[in-house]
Amino acid sequence: MNTLSIKKQLHIRFSEVDSMGVVWHGNYVTYLEDAREAFGEKYDLGYLRIFGEGYYAPLVDVHLQHKRPIIYGMHPEIEIVYRPTDAAKIIFDYRITDGETLVATARTMQVFMDKEYKLVLTNPPFFEEWKNKWL
Amino acid sequence: MNTLSIKKQLHIRFSEVDSMGVVWHGNYVTYLEDAREAFGEKYDLGYLRIFGEGYYAPLVDVHLQHKRPIIYGMHPEIEIVYRPTDAAKIIFDYRITDGETLVATARTMQVFMDKEYKLVLTNPPFFEEWKNKWL
Amino acid sequence: MNTLSIKKQLHIRFSEVDSMGVVWHGNYVTYLEDAREAFGEKYDLGYLRIFGEGYYAPLVDVHLQHKRPIIYGMHPEIEIVYRPTDAAKIIFDYRITDGETLVATARTMQVFMDKEYKLVLTNPPFFEEWKNKWL
Amino acid sequence: MNTLSIKKQLHIRFSEVDSMGVVWHGNYVTYLEDAREAFGEKYDLGYLRIFGEGYYAPLVDVHLQHKRPIIYGMHPEIEIVYRPTDAAKIIFDYRITDGETLVATARTMQVFMDKEYKLVLTNPPFFEEWKNKWL
Repeated sequence: MNTLSIKKQLHIRFSEVDSMGVVWHGNYVTYLEDAREAFGEKYDLGYLRIFGEGYYAPLVDVHLQHKRPIIYGMHPEIEIVYRPTDAAKIIFDYRITDGETLVATARTMQVFMDKEYKLVLTNPPFFEEWKNKWL
Repeated sequence: MNTLSIKKQLHIRFSEVDSMGVVWHGNYVTYLEDAREAFGEKYDLGYLRIFGEGYYAPLVDVHLQHKRPIIYGMHPEIEIVYRPTDAAKIIFDYRITDGETLVATARTMQVFMDKEYKLVLTNPPFFEEWKNKWL
Repeated sequence: MNTLSIKKQLHIRFSEVDSMGVVWHGNYVTYLEDAREAFGEKYDLGYLRIFGEGYYAPLVDVHLQHKRPIIYGMHPEIEIVYRPTDAAKIIFDYRITDGETLVATARTMQVFMDKEYKLVLTNPPFFEEWKNKWL
Repeated sequence: MNTLSIKKQLHIRFSEVDSMGVVWHGNYVTYLEDAREAFGEKYDLGYLRIFGEGYYAPLVDVHLQHKRPIIYGMHPEIEIVYRPTDAAKIIFDYRITDGETLVATARTMQVFMDKEYKLVLTNPPFFEEWKNKWL
């Protein structure tokens, strides 16, 4: 089974730095989204694809652990790794690093909902095909 | 003709303060939106009403002028005033004050679009009625 | 020992709703901050107090679990509960509800850093006093 | 006199799209900031440089005009142009385009403040040197 992952350099905006001089923690959720979008482009699993297949994939669990602050002017990198599961879920692990230094880790879990916002308990057919193709 | 307006106290979040110790200017756009929402609730012209009538009312012009910085811990107030016009537009003026001190002024202009995102050049019937009722 | 908590009604902004028609998950982090600020005001443990005592209290762990989406027009409530610990940490649990319906739960953990951004491993004196006063 | 400008492709985040399916107007202020940062990097006039010289350069006037909506999946480009003035101000014009289509225009004006947040009415020496070097 292949390990699917991608690395992406983060662009830290001045407005993301708070009055303590470090990136406000709430912005990390956006960095995770940036990583998922980059993953989705590389592996054809972006929001537009999922939506086009007739589903939403909302986040139901987000767990972030901050190890070091990010200062304005740093150019940290985020790595996103897909974690296979049999359940009808999409699980990603994330590592944000600045050179050798670990800045933060995170895990997110998404589920599938249909267009009526009903939870889908089994893997959608397009997602089964996606797994067969990539994993 | 009546002057329609409402005042609202702003809630400044810690995360809205930047590394210069003042509210990041980009957040003011959100304060204007807060004021429009308060206006919409009072005068029945909120997003949900407009949408329910079959229209969008996107902002096409935003002009903000900053006079004084907002510091965390301040409790500024925003006043929004409706500016009548014959054109199919919604124009608001805003004043943000902290006690006697003028902090910022702004003007926004919205147009009407139908659900196919086509610009509507004449006042929608519901908006004509709204004007007759309130002005 | 007293259980310290506070409830606060959330104000959902139109701009917090994403193209799926529900509040974008990243905004929940801001709601948690709103709750902490309300708690800090009631129990004298706000950012300005902590900073005035010579410390920062950055978030090092944020765990959010989404149960139901928040729709524009809902007026959900957030409850924040302080969880006592002997470690030099501030732990809060959160519950967001809409009437009887549980919308989301969360837990955050903060540590203390001095003004040189060094981790403080024992409870700062002001925080010991705070505990003695309130718990 | 040289015309100083730079173009930058915008990265539109999913979370920047609102429930009307278009980028929420408040995010454009962030795009302007992205453009200023790119300009600052190319022409050595970034926040850190200005701050290192002993000044802030807060925005005092922001004027945005929206011509067309930005849809998720578009890859618009922003152009920022420096507009020379004798006053102690920094003025930029912006054009956001998607291919041949004009999406938005904007103008911002910044002033100089010293570290005590006092307005500086004459051009700071470092800014005079900057003008001599680049214009």
